[in-house]
Amino acid sequence: MKREDVLMEAMPYIQRFHGKTIVIKLGGHAMVDQKILDTAIQDVVLLRYVGINVVLVHGGGPEITEKMEAMGKKPKFVAGLRITDSETMEIAQMVLVGKINDNIVSDIAKFGALGVGISGNDGNLLIAHKAGTKTVMVDETSQEVDLGLVGDIEEVNPRILEDLLEKHYIPVVAPVAIDRKGHSLNVNADTAAGEIAVALKADKLINLSDIDGVMNANRTRTYQRLTLQEADALISDGTIVGGMIPKLESCLYALNHGVRSAHIINGNREHNLLLELFTDNGVGTMIHHI
Amino acid sequence: MKREDVLMEAMPYIQRFHGKTIVIKLGGHAMVDQKILDTAIQDVVLLRYVGINVVLVHGGGPEITEKMEAMGKKPKFVAGLRITDSETMEIAQMVLVGKINDNIVSDIAKFGALGVGISGNDGNLLIAHKAGTKTVMVDETSQEVDLGLVGDIEEVNPRILEDLLEKHYIPVVAPVAIDRKGHSLNVNADTAAGEIAVALKADKLINLSDIDGVMNANRTRTYQRLTLQEADALISDGTIVGGMIPKLESCLYALNHGVRSAHIINGNREHNLLLELFTDNGVGTMIHHI
Amino acid sequence: MKREDVLMEAMPYIQRFHGKTIVIKLGGHAMVDQKILDTAIQDVVLLRYVGINVVLVHGGGPEITEKMEAMGKKPKFVAGLRITDSETMEIAQMVLVGKINDNIVSDIAKFGALGVGISGNDGNLLIAHKAGTKTVMVDETSQEVDLGLVGDIEEVNPRILEDLLEKHYIPVVAPVAIDRKGHSLNVNADTAAGEIAVALKADKLINLSDIDGVMNANRTRTYQRLTLQEADALISDGTIVGGMIPKLESCLYALNHGVRSAHIINGNREHNLLLELFTDNGVGTMIHHI
Amino acid sequence: MKREDVLMEAMPYIQRFHGKTIVIKLGGHAMVDQKILDTAIQDVVLLRYVGINVVLVHGGGPEITEKMEAMGKKPKFVAGLRITDSETMEIAQMVLVGKINDNIVSDIAKFGALGVGISGNDGNLLIAHKAGTKTVMVDETSQEVDLGLVGDIEEVNPRILEDLLEKHYIPVVAPVAIDRKGHSLNVNADTAAGEIAVALKADKLINLSDIDGVMNANRTRTYQRLTLQEADALISDGTIVGGMIPKLESCLYALNHGVRSAHIINGNREHNLLLELFTDNGVGTMIHHI
Amino acid sequence: MKREDVLMEAMPYIQRFHGKTIVIKLGGHAMVDQKILDTAIQDVVLLRYVGINVVLVHGGGPEITEKMEAMGKKPKFVAGLRITDSETMEIAQMVLVGKINDNIVSDIAKFGALGVGISGNDGNLLIAHKAGTKTVMVDETSQEVDLGLVGDIEEVNPRILEDLLEKHYIPVVAPVAIDRKGHSLNVNADTAAGEIAVALKADKLINLSDIDGVMNANRTRTYQRLTLQEADALISDGTIVGGMIPKLESCLYALNHGVRSAHIINGNREHNLLLELFTDNGVGTMIHHI
Amino acid sequence: MKREDVLMEAMPYIQRFHGKTIVIKLGGHAMVDQKILDTAIQDVVLLRYVGINVVLVHGGGPEITEKMEAMGKKPKFVAGLRITDSETMEIAQMVLVGKINDNIVSDIAKFGALGVGISGNDGNLLIAHKAGTKTVMVDETSQEVDLGLVGDIEEVNPRILEDLLEKHYIPVVAPVAIDRKGHSLNVNADTAAGEIAVALKADKLINLSDIDGVMNANRTRTYQRLTLQEADALISDGTIVGGMIPKLESCLYALNHGVRSAHIINGNREHNLLLELFTDNGVGTMIHHI
Repeated sequence: MKREDVLMEAMPYIQRFHGKTIVIKLGGHAMVDQKILDTAIQDVVLLRYVGINVVLVHGGGPEITEKMEAMGKKPKFVAGLRITDSETMEIAQMVLVGKINDNIVSDIAKFGALGVGISGNDGNLLIAHKAGTKTVMVDETSQEVDLGLVGDIEEVNPRILEDLLEKHYIPVVAPVAIDRKGHSLNVNADTAAGEIAVALKADKLINLSDIDGVMNANRTRTYQRLTLQEADALISDGTIVGGMIPKLESCLYALNHGVRSAHIINGNREHNLLLELFTDNGVGTMIHHI
Repeated sequence: MKREDVLMEAMPYIQRFHGKTIVIKLGGHAMVDQKILDTAIQDVVLLRYVGINVVLVHGGGPEITEKMEAMGKKPKFVAGLRITDSETMEIAQMVLVGKINDNIVSDIAKFGALGVGISGNDGNLLIAHKAGTKTVMVDETSQEVDLGLVGDIEEVNPRILEDLLEKHYIPVVAPVAIDRKGHSLNVNADTAAGEIAVALKADKLINLSDIDGVMNANRTRTYQRLTLQEADALISDGTIVGGMIPKLESCLYALNHGVRSAHIINGNREHNLLLELFTDNGVGTMIHHI
Repeated sequence: MKREDVLMEAMPYIQRFHGKTIVIKLGGHAMVDQKILDTAIQDVVLLRYVGINVVLVHGGGPEITEKMEAMGKKPKFVAGLRITDSETMEIAQMVLVGKINDNIVSDIAKFGALGVGISGNDGNLLIAHKAGTKTVMVDETSQEVDLGLVGDIEEVNPRILEDLLEKHYIPVVAPVAIDRKGHSLNVNADTAAGEIAVALKADKLINLSDIDGVMNANRTRTYQRLTLQEADALISDGTIVGGMIPKLESCLYALNHGVRSAHIINGNREHNLLLELFTDNGVGTMIHHI
Repeated sequence: MKREDVLMEAMPYIQRFHGKTIVIKLGGHAMVDQKILDTAIQDVVLLRYVGINVVLVHGGGPEITEKMEAMGKKPKFVAGLRITDSETMEIAQMVLVGKINDNIVSDIAKFGALGVGISGNDGNLLIAHKAGTKTVMVDETSQEVDLGLVGDIEEVNPRILEDLLEKHYIPVVAPVAIDRKGHSLNVNADTAAGEIAVALKADKLINLSDIDGVMNANRTRTYQRLTLQEADALISDGTIVGGMIPKLESCLYALNHGVRSAHIINGNREHNLLLELFTDNGVGTMIHHI
Repeated sequence: MKREDVLMEAMPYIQRFHGKTIVIKLGGHAMVDQKILDTAIQDVVLLRYVGINVVLVHGGGPEITEKMEAMGKKPKFVAGLRITDSETMEIAQMVLVGKINDNIVSDIAKFGALGVGISGNDGNLLIAHKAGTKTVMVDETSQEVDLGLVGDIEEVNPRILEDLLEKHYIPVVAPVAIDRKGHSLNVNADTAAGEIAVALKADKLINLSDIDGVMNANRTRTYQRLTLQEADALISDGTIVGGMIPKLESCLYALNHGVRSAHIINGNREHNLLLELFTDNGVGTMIHHI
Repeated sequence: MKREDVLMEAMPYIQRFHGKTIVIKLGGHAMVDQKILDTAIQDVVLLRYVGINVVLVHGGGPEITEKMEAMGKKPKFVAGLRITDSETMEIAQMVLVGKINDNIVSDIAKFGALGVGISGNDGNLLIAHKAGTKTVMVDETSQEVDLGLVGDIEEVNPRILEDLLEKHYIPVVAPVAIDRKGHSLNVNADTAAGEIAVALKADKLINLSDIDGVMNANRTRTYQRLTLQEADALISDGTIVGGMIPKLESCLYALNHGVRSAHIINGNREHNLLLELFTDNGVGTMIHHI
């Protein structure tokens, strides 16, 4: 394909998204492979230059576990749920804010734009309260487990993001919230991205992970487009399982609260972000209204 | 070349020109072939969307002659210079402002941006006085010829262009000036483009015509880059002749008054504008300082 | 009357209209007699200086016909309606935008203010679709006639006018619209003025033509004031006929969509515009609510 | 003269002064005859509406004396100079700020604009220090006389005036200053007007009093125009005497510090202000550079 | 108490009132004792510096009477109500605007902030009409008494106050209104303060007088807090009498029209204003919703 | 001391510093004792509310060492200088940005203001290059030691701080810079604070550490005030030693580049920040020009 044809193909999309706000969730894999991160960030910087307001939200689970082990702290799980005691929280925060977040911001600088790292306490962006106990099955008996310093978001104050977008920065958000007393709480990055997209009245929420999109029951193909209703049905009928559930739920939450479309795409393939946004056939699953 | 690679190659140029002002002279050929105009305007619209302030200046010689003949008015030339009487001026103005300019603005609308047609009297953009007589050789005797309603630009008031750029319109300028009493005068479009680039403190002046760039003496190759001094020398030593002289002179004038670089490229090849601006090897001649 | 008394008489009107928007339709006669145009434009410039936002909309029927003939193109009429084929449209556009509109802008410059010529495609001001066929009686049989490139306005985007007014320019609008594909269509100037007055939420619409105002059935006197209801009745009962109908209908349309008053005055008498606006007894017909 | 001709004659002046700042000193006579004040204020309101920034400065000597007598306080003069003790200052301030100034502001309201009364302490507009003693001849012996609470202006802070002009109010300034400790001091109104015109970089200073302008030595005619040098000479050679000296000196001070022209006109004749500004032949004396 | 503890105690209040608007009525006693005025103004200046928008409204009854007597004019009362003839109005205006108001503005300057004196005619702040006659009992027979130039406020135009607050001035309002013809009318200062608080959508109205607050029936204690309902009841059951009635009524009026709380505090005790606003236990009576 | 007297004493200082910018270096001790941090942050929040633009810069040496040990990484020193290898840098960054910085921002939220954590890569705030090798004495032989990932600041881009201050946030800066390729480098916090104060044209630089100020040679008293020259002399003559040298040098650097005064005060004593700024006798050493 000729250079000029590519740019021409991109043009209607550039026009459509110009001045719009897009929230992008960067999944854990982009966090551990610098090359994958680099191409994602290049795409993000290009989006910024063609006039799109981009907000990044990142996770970091795998790296937190790794650092905990390096510090001789054993991660604790009950029925598959991580228990976040205060020592774990401190490590999580250092890794998320001091390493992953900072690294993304430096990467943005490397590719020629200005990022600003934002934690949930900056400008009181994310206010949460402790999620409390959860009922799980342990050895076939139901049990109440206190997840510790894990938070449910109760308020999003998007002003700090709006102020930064107005001045053309790319905000990079770490999934750490504070409670009303200023204590840090760990929040799910998919959920945070969805809540932020809603608070910013974003046009799109994009979940950039390591899978190609939403797949059908026997994993033979990826849906290119799903309506809100179809996606809902896929959760209800058990087609969607595992880690895809929170991703898809945050997408549906966003769509149900005013976001126009949500995308689940594979960040491991180079420039998938650009291809999904700027070409006639996207590369992942797009979920939309009706 | 893969789509994403094209976009990546464009990125550093998009960053470099973001927020800059570029004045583009659209040559006569773009005016007579709608398809050529279409690809030029598509490029211009894309430039606008990636944050570049574009001002278009167009000519229209061939079409003026054609309309004059359709109206039974014979164009008058002395020693190759067109004599512009008031009837000729009226036709020229109708063609330039009412046909060519308006057509370009409609083309911009067709490709999704907002243009505004501007004549030299709009906001007093171009103030000129009659160029007066010129000494020419007729039948081997030197003779004074009054060119009629042809103007030398004496003042450029760029505020109307700045006001429109600030609001993200694409101004399209017809080469018609007014004198201090409000009478219209025909001005050379290359010269007008150069003067406007200077008044706007533009970053670039691009002359989009039907030749590939500045060629060497025996027309065997096109220079890719020329310094101001080299270009000056090519005029002095007679390498440059004919219609290329005013094009190059307006480029040199602009460079000598603060514009950073000037380009002469072939508008007949599709998307040459994008390729010159957004690829590592341009497609025409770039003239620059030192 | 002493100078100072004139200024004092004008004062309450200056105060009342300060900061308000007035749309003035300049009729065809002002277009062919430069002296009439001059006094109208002097008035308009004064209005601008006393803080009134003025938008001019002009017609140009007679001059289009004249130029068509000069170009050997015979105007075609069916049952009194002009058929606008593409050649006619091209001439109309050249005359309206390249001659009449440009001339008005130069006249504004001559009297010391800054005008900007605007065609319906500038900033997508006037979007229209082909009016289609009309049923007319030809030789006593009803017949469908395609009027050709004549447009019905379907959308007015007044932002370009608002942007120019905000910066204190006087916009001068030619009655040429574009369709969704960027093709030019001829629109009625009275209608365009009415639509623009509504889109700008103007205070007044003034129709400056060559008649003294709305006259009674036996043409013995001009009404000084008419309510919307009275004017409606004059149309219904057949008192109003001919070219006055579209003028009055655009006034009534404007009044029915939020404009506060509409005036029909004679532009052939010097400074009638000022006298209508700035003296206790106006000079034409004012149509108002209740 | 016909109404429309008056307005046309005014137009070039309206254009010239549009957006400019004019400081007008209202003399004592305008203060005691409500009808004279009314026509002056009507003129001022008209100036405001045609886009001129007007600042009024008023005096009030005669009325102060009158009120002092009403309050049983005998004005004290030494060699013709008023001695301002603290009781006199209190009365002066009440009359200037509470009566004259307030009355002017109400008059502005009556004619349809918004005035704001300003004393020298509002926004620290006028900072002064006690003028101290003056050497006068009493009974043929030279004597030092302390004038009391009379101030020499040492600093003008025009921000409050600029803030009000920006919002289109007409500021009305009473000639009362404060010293660095917040005590009130009486200042000469002519001097205050000159200082304010300089601080505001005004275009004009107009002294509206009860004389027709600067007269020649034998009082046979009024000068229509004087250069700065000619006016200087008239003071030096003794042509100018009495109360005209401070008026002329404040004019010269203003011209020497950047104001473009100064006018001395008779406010007793109705609308002289408009006639001086808006007609080809003024009505008083204009002093200008070179 | 240690310095730092005082500042820490003040902090939550500073935070709460930051950016809010507070209207403060300065009672007559502050007007006659310069030391009391000084501490009140110091407090006001501090409030301005911690980001609170303060508007002062002052009265001046006692001083008006005093000046009238000094000018040999006997105040006239019928059944305890002052009859304001035009001579009385002139003196009142001179004292209120030219003496008291000006003195407060100078005091603000002395303590390092910028005040601007405002009368009801400045920017048409307070428009009133004559209150007309009142029925009073004279010698046991009911009689209609015309109070003269006393006004009932019918319109408040707060723009001049908003414009000054936006530029960080402290407006000082004298209780003089104008009618539609520009004549001055005396208005009650408590009422004016309440009306202004409502027009500005103020957060608080504070009445600073010479009593400690609202007292119980047998004058044994001051209420610290009262709900709107409780305060209403105290008026209905006759607990509140005399001069406290208009103070309390203006508070209730303000609360009923959107002001959040009203305070009645003793201005004779130094810095009571700060203590009421910035300490945990206030010093007067606060009236609030529910 | 009475509450109101404290507030009055603070007033002139509040006025003086209103709208000014102050950069505060928070020393390591404030980082390890939450109670000390709390009182410092309370002071900072109060400064913000009284209209001062505060930027915090923090260090973190002790805690970095502690975390390194927790992660089984032995800090390496040569001749007392820390060698920062890439693993050390990663830990430093996590502690500085993810723990200390985040904790300060949460503390600001707890006391009612909005902080935003900023690392040197946010908005490209701090650009540095590797400091390179240093010559040290090891076992009496001179040796070149590569300090590793330690940076010398070469460029400060204060726009992100200005943007945040303009919107009334409190920026909290971690002493981590990036090089031109986006790699993180450790920079000295005292130096960073000085550079930032200069780039922001700050009014004051305050170094809040655990010592009372600059002491005389025999440590018997703390200087209350020092001129730039006197402080220079104290370094030259060896009075100043150890950790005080970088603190004082960053102060002198700031003063020599436009900052008006620098303070070294003890942050361990509660509210020393307020006492230094808002009381007549400060609590530490102030260094100033001449």
